[in-house]
Amino acid sequence: MDSSWEDLTLAFSRTSMFPFFDIAHYLVSVMALKHRPGAVEGAWKNPFSSWFTAMLHCFGGGILSCILLAEPPLRFLANHTNVLLASSIWYIIFFCPWDLISQGYSFLPVQLLAAGMKEVTRTWKIIGGITHANSYYKNGWLVMIAIGWAQGAGGIIITNFEQLLKGDWKPEGNEWLKMSYPSKVTLLGSLIFTFQHTKHLTISKHNLMFLYTIFLVTTKVRVLGICSLAVASHFPQHL
Amino acid sequence: MDSSWEDLTLAFSRTSMFPFFDIAHYLVSVMALKHRPGAVEGAWKNPFSSWFTAMLHCFGGGILSCILLAEPPLRFLANHTNVLLASSIWYIIFFCPWDLISQGYSFLPVQLLAAGMKEVTRTWKIIGGITHANSYYKNGWLVMIAIGWAQGAGGIIITNFEQLLKGDWKPEGNEWLKMSYPSKVTLLGSLIFTFQHTKHLTISKHNLMFLYTIFLVTTKVRVLGICSLAVASHFPQHL
Amino acid sequence: MDSSWEDLTLAFSRTSMFPFFDIAHYLVSVMALKHRPGAVEGAWKNPFSSWFTAMLHCFGGGILSCILLAEPPLRFLANHTNVLLASSIWYIIFFCPWDLISQGYSFLPVQLLAAGMKEVTRTWKIIGGITHANSYYKNGWLVMIAIGWAQGAGGIIITNFEQLLKGDWKPEGNEWLKMSYPSKVTLLGSLIFTFQHTKHLTISKHNLMFLYTIFLVTTKVRVLGICSLAVASHFPQHL
Repeated sequence: MDSSWEDLTLAFSRTSMFPFFDIAHYLVSVMALKHRPGAVEGAWKNPFSSWFTAMLHCFGGGILSCILLAEPPLRFLANHTNVLLASSIWYIIFFCPWDLISQGYSFLPVQLLAAGMKEVTRTWKIIGGITHANSYYKNGWLVMIAIGWAQGAGGIIITNFEQLLKGDWKPEGNEWLKMSYPSKVTLLGSLIFTFQHTKHLTISKHNLMFLYTIFLVTTKVRVLGICSLAVASHFPQHL
Repeated sequence: MDSSWEDLTLAFSRTSMFPFFDIAHYLVSVMALKHRPGAVEGAWKNPFSSWFTAMLHCFGGGILSCILLAEPPLRFLANHTNVLLASSIWYIIFFCPWDLISQGYSFLPVQLLAAGMKEVTRTWKIIGGITHANSYYKNGWLVMIAIGWAQGAGGIIITNFEQLLKGDWKPEGNEWLKMSYPSKVTLLGSLIFTFQHTKHLTISKHNLMFLYTIFLVTTKVRVLGICSLAVASHFPQHL
Repeated sequence: MDSSWEDLTLAFSRTSMFPFFDIAHYLVSVMALKHRPGAVEGAWKNPFSSWFTAMLHCFGGGILSCILLAEPPLRFLANHTNVLLASSIWYIIFFCPWDLISQGYSFLPVQLLAAGMKEVTRTWKIIGGITHANSYYKNGWLVMIAIGWAQGAGGIIITNFEQLLKGDWKPEGNEWLKMSYPSKVTLLGSLIFTFQHTKHLTISKHNLMFLYTIFLVTTKVRVLGICSLAVASHFPQHL
């Protein structure tokens, strides 16, 4: 491969997630929480409960992988900067006057940009999980796949469990492990990064990160774009 | 401050919880369990299950903070003296002939004394939790608040979860994190002791312990006393 | 005792569980899963969920004792050989053409042999749990009993919890801790092996292992045999 491609992918793989990509992740997670029925009234009645749920949405993957590796599930609270960032985003999304943030977020390009940036954090989380699991179990590739997957897509399981405890959600037979599209894509990513890590795939890590992220972002943005266009063509007054 | 006040609060802060305050805590916890509908018949039918629930009531705060810090949740079983003490109290409360203990406990001053002593253990537990969390995360004040709170009021969450598993309790939307009065007071205590620990409050620890305990005990005893008087004035034949 | 008896019990206590006894354990566990209503259709619709449930059935005791000792609950995944063995057994039981394995398993002597061998693994698991707990808490005999019990019979609790999350099972008041026969027998075993370990019982370990295993196997085989004979005498066309 020529040197400029190498330079591009290396620079990409060294991008820091903090603060912009993390902000996009928190924004998308908390907006998903806000669109649940009853979330806004709940936040006014019981702000602490709403804040707690928002933290579970933002840090769910980390909490799940901590539980699976028997590390303190509260560890995310020790990273004060990220907790304060996520809390501020929760605050302005739920309590901003005239709902300015939601108005801005309903503008399609903003939504696409945030969703795309959130997918970038997914790659970084999968790799973080695999590296972390590898420090526990050398050659434990099943554990590495599981932890990479938990980091990348575990928020869904944590928030389902939280809804179960709250009584908002009743589990149905065999529904629980029926995998959503993000779960499947994250499992695929966890598989290929694990095999890259154990040298069964001879592609270099930064190239793989670049290609997988491009794949994640394009599929996500295309799906969102098609959905929005379909809605727009049926309800043209929304444009 | 004059020296006699210092002496008093220092001596107070060195009081050992074992055995009398611990006994009061177990007594109040197991009596609360006994007043649940069906608890006494359940204990005769399935003593092991009742004993297990009583242990969760007595040691719930410690179990929750162990889970949150990824320590063995069974650790309380290694403290044989306290487990045997709590088990004996469970035994005499549920299986004492002529229900002597419940008769004695229904006498108001006994109830007030036990409730007041239980509140004293709350202060000690909050401080124990904060010190313990601090040994994990230096300056992790969010973790310290959370663990202090879990130690002091976590029994409620553990017993709710146990009732959920047993099917005695169905969660309702947003009810789960609606905080009871003890939860709120414990959160307040956890906040001020954490800020004392991180030197943001310049009051000495033993003075703060004394003042906070006085506050806890007086509010608890007053609430209990008012409730009892209200019941007594409506049903004077109970006196 | 004469030397030939000593030789027999010593040789017995050194038997390796891998692979034949482990295979019997996985076979009985996965067959129990298959006889649940809807399990076979569920496996065709969602193989991943079915595989995950099968792993919980096979390794449930280990997972529960890991949780109780704050060790990574995913640790069983690091033992690749056993995971692959259990997965293969799950695969051939659920997806074998003409259902050959189930046909063979419905033959009574095979069932008795597998059930007997599974009971042998129970003794080994109880002892493994007690030794492991002892390495954490010297003299913590309550913890040793609990972990030995969790290792030997914890699969039931883990699979009940999994069914609760899936919505297949609704808990009923006080049903949860009503102990089944295997739970009671495992608790008894955990008690006697703990007292043997703490030198309160002066019988040697290999003799105790032999006697307890004989007891487990004979009661299990007799119960199964009587059930089958009762079924056969009522429905003679099944013979």
